[in-house]
Amino acid sequence: MPPVVLRRQLTIAWGDCDPAGIVFNPRFFEFFDASSWQLFDMALGVKPHQLNDAFGIIGIPLVDARANFLKAVKFGDTIEIATRATKFGRSSFEIEHRLSVGGELHVEGNETRVWAAKDPADPDRIKGIPFPPAVIAKFG
Amino acid sequence: MPPVVLRRQLTIAWGDCDPAGIVFNPRFFEFFDASSWQLFDMALGVKPHQLNDAFGIIGIPLVDARANFLKAVKFGDTIEIATRATKFGRSSFEIEHRLSVGGELHVEGNETRVWAAKDPADPDRIKGIPFPPAVIAKFG
Amino acid sequence: MPPVVLRRQLTIAWGDCDPAGIVFNPRFFEFFDASSWQLFDMALGVKPHQLNDAFGIIGIPLVDARANFLKAVKFGDTIEIATRATKFGRSSFEIEHRLSVGGELHVEGNETRVWAAKDPADPDRIKGIPFPPAVIAKFG
Amino acid sequence: MPPVVLRRQLTIAWGDCDPAGIVFNPRFFEFFDASSWQLFDMALGVKPHQLNDAFGIIGIPLVDARANFLKAVKFGDTIEIATRATKFGRSSFEIEHRLSVGGELHVEGNETRVWAAKDPADPDRIKGIPFPPAVIAKFG
Repeated sequence: MPPVVLRRQLTIAWGDCDPAGIVFNPRFFEFFDASSWQLFDMALGVKPHQLNDAFGIIGIPLVDARANFLKAVKFGDTIEIATRATKFGRSSFEIEHRLSVGGELHVEGNETRVWAAKDPADPDRIKGIPFPPAVIAKFG
Repeated sequence: MPPVVLRRQLTIAWGDCDPAGIVFNPRFFEFFDASSWQLFDMALGVKPHQLNDAFGIIGIPLVDARANFLKAVKFGDTIEIATRATKFGRSSFEIEHRLSVGGELHVEGNETRVWAAKDPADPDRIKGIPFPPAVIAKFG
Repeated sequence: MPPVVLRRQLTIAWGDCDPAGIVFNPRFFEFFDASSWQLFDMALGVKPHQLNDAFGIIGIPLVDARANFLKAVKFGDTIEIATRATKFGRSSFEIEHRLSVGGELHVEGNETRVWAAKDPADPDRIKGIPFPPAVIAKFG
Repeated sequence: MPPVVLRRQLTIAWGDCDPAGIVFNPRFFEFFDASSWQLFDMALGVKPHQLNDAFGIIGIPLVDARANFLKAVKFGDTIEIATRATKFGRSSFEIEHRLSVGGELHVEGNETRVWAAKDPADPDRIKGIPFPPAVIAKFG
């Protein structure tokens, strides 16, 4: 089964850009975060507020985020972001985002997230728990 | 008793500005929202998550926001925002924000917020409830 | 000729929302700003960076923004924003935004913007200049 | 000479947080970006718009950004960010940000930026140029 890939298009808004006329870097992390949630929704058919009922987790907190800015993205550019899960560990997983303009890669992003539940030993803390194999299977 | 006024200073960051090199307008509403919370904290000595325990309300939702942009605010400008409650109705109140650069008014903001509790008739809805007079007194 | 109306749909992202789980109010002003630029593009067929060449103006600065929050908009909601120019003065104009969820109006926004050029008397300042009638005609 | 370290304190605002009540991750990249600009200002005594006159560069574009989220940062937390340049290559440099709450490290950020001028062969492009040794010396 091929990997599930979420593709979406956006047009860069005036307010996404800084005084140099290019996208202010934190905006890319906003785009990537939204894509990750949409990928989850597409692969699992579950909305974020249903994660607890469906899987007994409280969320998929981010533990690491990285981006590599290859070319500047400008006001008015139409971007395409392709997002997929690239690796599943015991309780963490990697998500990759490839942002292109006109078919050319401009920004590459990577996130590490955790499949997390409340820690039974301390309900104020959360901890990673093992992925159900059925979840991994749904990402292809 | 003179009105309680919250004053705070900020330096405009690169990421607050748009391709014209001036503050992107929604940022002013972010500044104002943060000032309103700080005014509440200063006047009432209560943090937002304590509003329910202290006063039986779930929050102070915004019903109306306005800003008047008199002069452009630029990257690197040091701004001062002075915030006060200007009017208390039965269950709503007005907050005024005056944003100055070098002592000169540049942006004027106004918010209408509600003193709100869960609607006993429908817990999914919220409704304004009358202000305790002791709360109004604390704003001077 | 009927007025030109820009309609666009968005899904509310996790990062658009605050700890109450509803859209953080400055986000609405971001949505409205982006809609105004798109309305201009649609009506005039001119990109923002072409405004100077096409019309001799340096931009359409915002002088006043207002929003009226009728109902809370939540994470995952699909919103539709309908944007139109409602009034043209000598050098200023009004833009109205109506944001609906499921066909029901949730937020109403209004902006006043100016058709602005560099002030010949002081190139560091900008001033409103009269609209070309042909521009007004294009908004219907 | 000890390294120049920029330290600043912030209180986390309501609008910095997501529906989980913790800082929405792109906000950290906003904080880091602002700290980098302030570090530059402190070390070099030059404002961003003076970089060209002072050093013949057009900016310090970001080519890579990373953050490691060790502990959640919550609404109302007072954070301290300590920022320093950790490594200078020929034309790129590394900036490290350590964000603490109550003296405990919560988020670690790293940026790679370039000392960049217009490419003489193509004014639409920028390219890294060698650091003046006097600049490096100023970072300690």
